[in-house]
Amino acid sequence: MKKIGDIMLIHEEVKGEAFLRDLEGKSPLFVCVIGTTETAKIPGISAAGRSPELTDYTPPADVELLLMGRCKCIQGVPVTPEGMPTPALITMSALKLADIPTLVVNGGSRVKPHVPFLDIGGSPGGDIRLGRAVRNVEEVLERARIFGENLSKVADYLVIGESIPGGTTTALGVLLAMGVDAKGKVSSSMPNNPHELKIKVVEVGLKAAGVEFDALANDPIRAITCVGDPIMPAFAGLILGASDEVPVLMAGGTQMGAILAIVNALKCDALDNIVIGTTRWIVSDRTADLRGIVTQIADIPILAVDLDFGQSKFEGLRAYEMGAVKEGVGAGGAAIAAMVKSKGCVTKEVLLKEVERSYENLMRLK
Amino acid sequence: MKKIGDIMLIHEEVKGEAFLRDLEGKSPLFVCVIGTTETAKIPGISAAGRSPELTDYTPPADVELLLMGRCKCIQGVPVTPEGMPTPALITMSALKLADIPTLVVNGGSRVKPHVPFLDIGGSPGGDIRLGRAVRNVEEVLERARIFGENLSKVADYLVIGESIPGGTTTALGVLLAMGVDAKGKVSSSMPNNPHELKIKVVEVGLKAAGVEFDALANDPIRAITCVGDPIMPAFAGLILGASDEVPVLMAGGTQMGAILAIVNALKCDALDNIVIGTTRWIVSDRTADLRGIVTQIADIPILAVDLDFGQSKFEGLRAYEMGAVKEGVGAGGAAIAAMVKSKGCVTKEVLLKEVERSYENLMRLK
Repeated sequence: MKKIGDIMLIHEEVKGEAFLRDLEGKSPLFVCVIGTTETAKIPGISAAGRSPELTDYTPPADVELLLMGRCKCIQGVPVTPEGMPTPALITMSALKLADIPTLVVNGGSRVKPHVPFLDIGGSPGGDIRLGRAVRNVEEVLERARIFGENLSKVADYLVIGESIPGGTTTALGVLLAMGVDAKGKVSSSMPNNPHELKIKVVEVGLKAAGVEFDALANDPIRAITCVGDPIMPAFAGLILGASDEVPVLMAGGTQMGAILAIVNALKCDALDNIVIGTTRWIVSDRTADLRGIVTQIADIPILAVDLDFGQSKFEGLRAYEMGAVKEGVGAGGAAIAAMVKSKGCVTKEVLLKEVERSYENLMRLK
Repeated sequence: MKKIGDIMLIHEEVKGEAFLRDLEGKSPLFVCVIGTTETAKIPGISAAGRSPELTDYTPPADVELLLMGRCKCIQGVPVTPEGMPTPALITMSALKLADIPTLVVNGGSRVKPHVPFLDIGGSPGGDIRLGRAVRNVEEVLERARIFGENLSKVADYLVIGESIPGGTTTALGVLLAMGVDAKGKVSSSMPNNPHELKIKVVEVGLKAAGVEFDALANDPIRAITCVGDPIMPAFAGLILGASDEVPVLMAGGTQMGAILAIVNALKCDALDNIVIGTTRWIVSDRTADLRGIVTQIADIPILAVDLDFGQSKFEGLRAYEMGAVKEGVGAGGAAIAAMVKSKGCVTKEVLLKEVERSYENLMRLK
């Protein structure tokens, strides 16, 4: 497998390398889309919060970290039930090292962040088992499109990440509704990926909505409405608005599959200007298959940053090597953008040092 | 008086010219701050709406026009009681001609626009006669600062405009509280500037707040809280966040005096990177004195676009030459930015043609 610095070319290597070369030294804008879904409160679904109820606070706390360097709506930082810290630490460190500007888009978060955020008319998502999970999908998509179009006139390229607990389950829902066989392929923030539970939840939701596998291949709006989540229309709208003008680095793991399917169905030529950027933890995750999802949709390059926290002095960071957390808040894509913007001055070692420094400071504040 | 193309150098000509030369061909970002204040509902204060009650719809309708090319929260476009159309027509036309990206910041608007907007925690403003007009000033200022700082890393410069009916009255309030003698100097959207009414309203407010002339020269936060409006902390925060990194064109009339006084008190060196850009209608307004306000605060260049609607085929636009409307929604600054970005290809004639075309289309839709 080919690498450019600490960036691994995982899929569609030639296109991926050309994409990276094209971005060198250019000025990215990082956009983080946040949202919540009641689906995350089903016990066992998400580890993006100390308890299911606390997952409502994870997205706003994550973006507070990005924009202020500390959380305001919670003490400390978001953690898994085992106390492993949010990947927003990686994102925050990467954005800081490469001085990358950051904006927050609220797709629909139950708790509002104490930082500036874009309102595009979204609401928190419901439990997908009811088969009607997201309201107002078309309007949110259109407003995000307008915003993305305007951003594309100022930034050289966009890096878009997300924070939504339960997001791989809703991604599975939309992928199945749209005819992408993603069973057993979506990732998890836990070392033991609860595939059976996710599939069961999605199947209940699809049944409630009266939707079979592949029934909504051409109707992503309805797929999101039934079994999706509120970051989806926001994320897809940003891509639709921006990708005519500038490249877009989709920063995330297997959830990006759902976004890709949505964008592909709405405007497939938008995909010419897109890559997925994630972490090594995602692409080496044996319990998931990002490439197996993506290749069913379109030939999009996959890049992965070769982070390694195995030698970290902090247990919370070493846990990433054991399969905890893996990705989120655009961590992988932000790291890639920092490396490219800094022309390689930000390496994985430099990044880990900064992550450790931030983690130490934030633990002290707590 | 010296002119560069259709841009008049009104005050601090040398600095103003250097500022303009520096921006030539660069990429601006237009930011429109919106808000409402109950002060606008005092009969006779504002003509920024067909009736005092309708002034709540003017700011959201203005930014819908900028981002979508038509209003959604009202039919047609915002008009004065006499039916003269909003200056957002000029802004919209200028931004379109020069392909200038646009973002909306909600300082505190009672009606939310149907377009993406930045939420910075602001609320609608109260009637300043009660002496407690704006809540949460410090928090809104800080969130706007964070946003401005991030924008300054992507845009070459910012053009910031505003839409708030009643804004010259609240500006008078803050100017007097901060020791700037602005009585009889603030402008009006009406041909007959109701100075006596404005002064009376402000004096009632200052008395209710227990504040005398000049008492809050060093406390702009309290001045806004008592007798200001919700666009002020948003606008000032954007400048504080952005002006370290990029030039800022303050797009507006005499209200800019209040913003200037606020910024000057909070961080006077921010003023080195700022000019005011407005319309000829403001600087030739015999019922107001922008220069007389500004020179009491700081030596900031004033630029004015030499628009002339006297020959327009539409009565609503010819009324601008009779003293109706004059400025707002950053019309003057947006026109200046369009001229500079296009290296003079956008002239006042080109702009008027585009304004007429837009006006005609929008009237037809109605």
